[in-house]
Amino acid sequence: MSRWEPNARGRLEQAALELYGESGFESTTVAEITKRAGLTERTFFRHFADKREVLFAGAGALQEMLVSKVNDAPASLPPIEAIATALHEVADAVFEERREFARRRQAAIAANAELQERELIKLASLSSALADALRERGVADPAASLAAEAGIAVFKIAFERWTNDTGERALSQLIRESMDELKLVTGGQPLTTRR
Amino acid sequence: MSRWEPNARGRLEQAALELYGESGFESTTVAEITKRAGLTERTFFRHFADKREVLFAGAGALQEMLVSKVNDAPASLPPIEAIATALHEVADAVFEERREFARRRQAAIAANAELQERELIKLASLSSALADALRERGVADPAASLAAEAGIAVFKIAFERWTNDTGERALSQLIRESMDELKLVTGGQPLTTRR
Repeated sequence: MSRWEPNARGRLEQAALELYGESGFESTTVAEITKRAGLTERTFFRHFADKREVLFAGAGALQEMLVSKVNDAPASLPPIEAIATALHEVADAVFEERREFARRRQAAIAANAELQERELIKLASLSSALADALRERGVADPAASLAAEAGIAVFKIAFERWTNDTGERALSQLIRESMDELKLVTGGQPLTTRR
Repeated sequence: MSRWEPNARGRLEQAALELYGESGFESTTVAEITKRAGLTERTFFRHFADKREVLFAGAGALQEMLVSKVNDAPASLPPIEAIATALHEVADAVFEERREFARRRQAAIAANAELQERELIKLASLSSALADALRERGVADPAASLAAEAGIAVFKIAFERWTNDTGERALSQLIRESMDELKLVTGGQPLTTRR
């Protein structure tokens, strides 16, 4: 019965994100998604456990990539630089070519409280995994937790700017800018000298 | 029928936290809480909407206090210092005398995934409210969001240390230490020079 559909996953993602934007996540059904994609529900459930998974299926792979890049960073690199390097590499390798998907995904999440909670949990899990990776490198606490939390805060804020940005600045550039800004902020840069 | 019970709220909190520690949050019932406290369920529901509320009833007041302290901070204070000041004041005024409650509460939350999610949402809401307060002070984005996220990360980590600490260091001291540590971390302090 089942047959191979060219780029079924990508077509399902696109159809789902279009529908979440048009009708909202809550009211969209899997049947509507598969109809829009010209695929069967059977195919949908081969790729995703449910309609929420379309938005969060990449979370595990993202976490693995970030952790492995922190593991691979030169031992001499300060903790925050190890995390910044991992974020830059993942931004270029994974996100840059998926900006339109990321924009639609962000809009769907912003419109739904349950999805926002799920996103918070994903980010907390990323932070916790990065802190573990830093501890593996011999970074003591609270520095490991703080560097991980700071890195994820930078990522979150840069990501929001990237998906809202009408210009074409790369995500990795916005991560760099936010990281620099965080350094100024935590350095207690006084308000009066700020732009 | 209803009568005034001396310190009913405190007795209900104490009974609930004891039972969450003994039997777990999930299996504890409101009936057990009120029995342990020697009070009626009617009294319980005058103070709390449900058994989860015992753990999160203070969230709204905490947020209001932090925001009002950021609002009241001298205009010349850098954003991160305005937040640090608010955290120190709230630590001393609210938390220091409730360390035992905070310890038990933290243990109950650590043991339950749903409560951890609720705690993440509470912290995200605090961060968002603090960022708004900074914007009111004229702080631009992304500095406002970054300072708020950094402040909440420091608070979260200091709070965990405080509730796990066997010593008697004050929460405000741990907040100060974590803030200093964050400055070192974001300054890219190399691993080799760390303790």
